[in-house]
Amino acid sequence: MINRTLIKDLQSSSDGPVTVSGWVETVRDQKKVQFVVLRDETGAVQLVNPRATDETGAVTATDVSDTISALSQGSFLTARGELKHDERVKLGGVEIKLASLEVASLAIPETPIADDSGIDKRMDWRFLDLRVPKNALVFKIQTTFLHALRTYWVEHDFIEITTPKLMASASESKAELFRVEYFEGSAFLAQSPQFFKQMAQPAGFGKIFEVGPAFRADPSFTSRHATEFTSIDTEFSWIESHEDVMKLHEELMVAGFQAVKDKHGADIEALFGFELTVPTVPFPRIPLAEAKRIVAERGYEVPRADDDMDPEGERQIAAYVKEEFGHDFVFLTDYASSIRPFYHMRNADDAGLTNSYDLIYNGVEISTGAQREHRIEILEQNARDKGLDPEELSGYLDFFRYGVPAHGGFGMGLARVLMLMLGLANLRETTYLFRGPTRLEP
Amino acid sequence: MINRTLIKDLQSSSDGPVTVSGWVETVRDQKKVQFVVLRDETGAVQLVNPRATDETGAVTATDVSDTISALSQGSFLTARGELKHDERVKLGGVEIKLASLEVASLAIPETPIADDSGIDKRMDWRFLDLRVPKNALVFKIQTTFLHALRTYWVEHDFIEITTPKLMASASESKAELFRVEYFEGSAFLAQSPQFFKQMAQPAGFGKIFEVGPAFRADPSFTSRHATEFTSIDTEFSWIESHEDVMKLHEELMVAGFQAVKDKHGADIEALFGFELTVPTVPFPRIPLAEAKRIVAERGYEVPRADDDMDPEGERQIAAYVKEEFGHDFVFLTDYASSIRPFYHMRNADDAGLTNSYDLIYNGVEISTGAQREHRIEILEQNARDKGLDPEELSGYLDFFRYGVPAHGGFGMGLARVLMLMLGLANLRETTYLFRGPTRLEP
Repeated sequence: MINRTLIKDLQSSSDGPVTVSGWVETVRDQKKVQFVVLRDETGAVQLVNPRATDETGAVTATDVSDTISALSQGSFLTARGELKHDERVKLGGVEIKLASLEVASLAIPETPIADDSGIDKRMDWRFLDLRVPKNALVFKIQTTFLHALRTYWVEHDFIEITTPKLMASASESKAELFRVEYFEGSAFLAQSPQFFKQMAQPAGFGKIFEVGPAFRADPSFTSRHATEFTSIDTEFSWIESHEDVMKLHEELMVAGFQAVKDKHGADIEALFGFELTVPTVPFPRIPLAEAKRIVAERGYEVPRADDDMDPEGERQIAAYVKEEFGHDFVFLTDYASSIRPFYHMRNADDAGLTNSYDLIYNGVEISTGAQREHRIEILEQNARDKGLDPEELSGYLDFFRYGVPAHGGFGMGLARVLMLMLGLANLRETTYLFRGPTRLEP
Repeated sequence: MINRTLIKDLQSSSDGPVTVSGWVETVRDQKKVQFVVLRDETGAVQLVNPRATDETGAVTATDVSDTISALSQGSFLTARGELKHDERVKLGGVEIKLASLEVASLAIPETPIADDSGIDKRMDWRFLDLRVPKNALVFKIQTTFLHALRTYWVEHDFIEITTPKLMASASESKAELFRVEYFEGSAFLAQSPQFFKQMAQPAGFGKIFEVGPAFRADPSFTSRHATEFTSIDTEFSWIESHEDVMKLHEELMVAGFQAVKDKHGADIEALFGFELTVPTVPFPRIPLAEAKRIVAERGYEVPRADDDMDPEGERQIAAYVKEEFGHDFVFLTDYASSIRPFYHMRNADDAGLTNSYDLIYNGVEISTGAQREHRIEILEQNARDKGLDPEELSGYLDFFRYGVPAHGGFGMGLARVLMLMLGLANLRETTYLFRGPTRLEP
C-alpha cells in the first residue's frame, strides 16, 4: 500500500514529511506559486508549490511545476511534501509544501457533469457524482446503519441467511415479475425473500435476517420506486402477535439511528444542515381505521375505493403524530384483510383485519410487517379467498404441513430509509446505482 | 413473545417452573409415563409426563396425555412444566415434568426424508433437512464468519455498497449470462459485482465491500458449481501490487476463522468431529509457474493446453504446502495473462504474467484476486488483445477516463469457503437453498 496519511488526520499530525493520495478538485496555476486542492475519501487539503527561480530571479520550470500545469480536475495522484500548520489556510488550517507528485491517472479535462446537472444526467455519470462529499456520505451512513442492524441481530442470536433470487414462481404479485431465461425453461426474480425467510421457521432456525436485493417489474417512474432495491428482512418464531414484530422493529431502528448519529452526526450537520433525531421507543401505534378518522378530522378524505391509505393520508397522519407526540415514526396497524396478502394472519377477533402494520417515517411508508398465518388450513383458505390456486403455491404451503411455529417479521427498503433520514427527494440519491424501467446503466 | 427459556440454558437454570418451545424429535408413549424429546435452535430436552391414575390406581387420560398421544414427529409446541436437574437423564442432565402443552402446529405424520436420504431428496425438503443440528450449524457459522468479515471492514473504514444485479451487458464471460425480459428489452444478471465495485474507486470511495448474490448460467452439475451463489467482494485504492490484496485477504480470513472457532469451535468438534484450525499469516505464496514445477516433481503433469492449473493440480500443490509449511491455504500468484481477464494488470516486468492470484484452501480454489489495470490506454489494449470490442465495454471503460487510483480486490464464494472449512463434499450442504441447472425449488 502507498503509505499515505488520510487527509482528515492531517490537522492532528505533526509538521514534517507527509504523503497524501486523492483526486484534484481545483488547480490555481499562478505565476509565482501553484495551488492544488486535493480530496480523498475523508477531506480536502491544499498543496502548494512556490515556483522555483534561477539566479536572476526568473521563474523556472521544474518537474513538479510542469506536472501541476498539466493537471486536469479529477486526476488521481499521490503527493509528497512537508506538512505545515498555518491558521491562515482556510482549508483545515494546514497545507502541504510539495516535494513530488506521482500521477496515477489523468482525467479528461472536460467534466461531463456540473454542480447544476439534473438527476438523470448525474446518474449517467454516477462515479463522478459520488465524488461530491455529500453524495458519498450517504453510503458511509448506509454502512454504519446496516452494521448496527446486523450487530443487533447477531448479538441477539439471529441467523443470517441468503435466500435465492432465482425462483420457480412468484412470491408476491404476478404482475410485477421479471422472467429469466433459465436454460431450456424460465425462472423469475424474487420480489422479496418472503417465502424463503418464512421457510427458516419450520426449519427451526428461530430467528433470521437477510439484507439483499429484490426485484419488481414496476413500470412506475416516481421518486420512490425502483425495479431493484435492497431489502432488509427479518423473521422470527414464537411471537404472540404483530406487536412483537413492531417491538423488534423499533429497537432495530433505534440501534441503527443511534450508530449513524454517533458516527456521522457532525457530518450530517455540516453537509445536510440538520441534526439527526434518534427516535425514542415505543413508536406511536395507530390502528388504520383510527388513522383514517384522524386524517378525515383534519379535512382530508382518502380518495381510494379500497381500505388502504394513500401517500397524502400517510403524510397527514405523520403530521398529526409529529404534532401530538413529537415523533417522526408511526406504526399504522391492523390493515384490512382485503388489502393484505393471504399470508398475513387475520385478527382473531375480526377476520376483516390482519395482524399487520406499515411503518411510516417522515410521512412515507418504509416497511410492512406482520404476524404470518402458520395454520395450514387457514392459510389455504386465505389463499383461496384471494383467488389464488393452492396448487400453484404448493411449494410454499408445504412449509406449513410438517410443523411450524407461530412467527412474523418485516421487510424494509434500505434506500427509502436513507432517503427519509436525510431529507432527500429521490431514491436515486440513496441508491448506489439506480435501476428503473429505462435505466440499466451504468 | 412467548417467554420461553432456550433449551441450552436449562442446565444452568434453577429447578422450578419453566417454558420451552420447539419441535418434537421423538415421542415414547408408554403405559405409565410419556416422554417427548423437544428440540429448539439451541438443543434438545426431555419432557416427561407420568400418567395420572384414579383412586383405583388405573391410568386415566388427561389433556396433556391425550395431546402427547396425538403428537407427530416434527410438530411445534410450547411446553410448560417443572424443570428438574437429574444426572440420570442422559440428555443434558435435566428434564421437564409437564404441566401443559400448547401445540402450534401438528406435522403430517409421514416424514418425507430420513437419515439416509440422498442429497437431492434432502434438498427437496430442505426445511426439514435443516432441522438436523449439524446442517443448521453451517448457517450459524455463516452468520459468525460474515459478521467477522464485515466488522473488520467497518473498523477499517471500508464502505458497504450494494451493486445492481440487473445489468445492460456482461461483466465477465458472455457464455454464462442469464437474460432477463426487461419491459420491452433485455437485461442480464450480474455474474459478479466486478465492474461496479471497481467503479467505487474513481468515485473516490477508497475502500469498499459487498456480500451479495452472483449468477452464472453454467450448465455444470459438479459438487462445486451453482447458478446462483453468494459472492464476498472487496476492492480498494492505492495498492502497489496484488501483494496488498493478498495481505488484506489473509487478515480477513484470520478474522473470520478466529470468530468461528471462538463461537462454534466446541460445536464443530461435537458435530463434525474435528478441531477447526485458524490459519496463521502470512499464507504461503507460490507463483503459478513454480507451483507447476513442484506438482510435476511430485509426478503430476497438469493435462491442460492452456497455462492454467486444474483441480488435481490444486490438490497436489495444497498437499505440498501442507507437508512443507503445515498450512491449509496457499496463494498461487502471477497467473498468465492468457488465462486472466483483460482487467487484471499485467506484470510490469513480464506482460505475459498478471498481478493476480488464486487462493486455494484445502486443495480447492475459493477466490481470485488481482491488481486491476487502471491506465485506460493499456486497459483498452488488453481488451482488444482478448478479442473484445472496446465499444461494447464503453460504460466500464468510462470509469477510467476521468481519473482513477491504482486499485485491486478479490471475489470469494461464501459457500465454497464453508464447504472446505467443514470438510463437506458438496456446495449444496453450505447453501441455504441451492440453485443449479435443474433446481429452482424450493
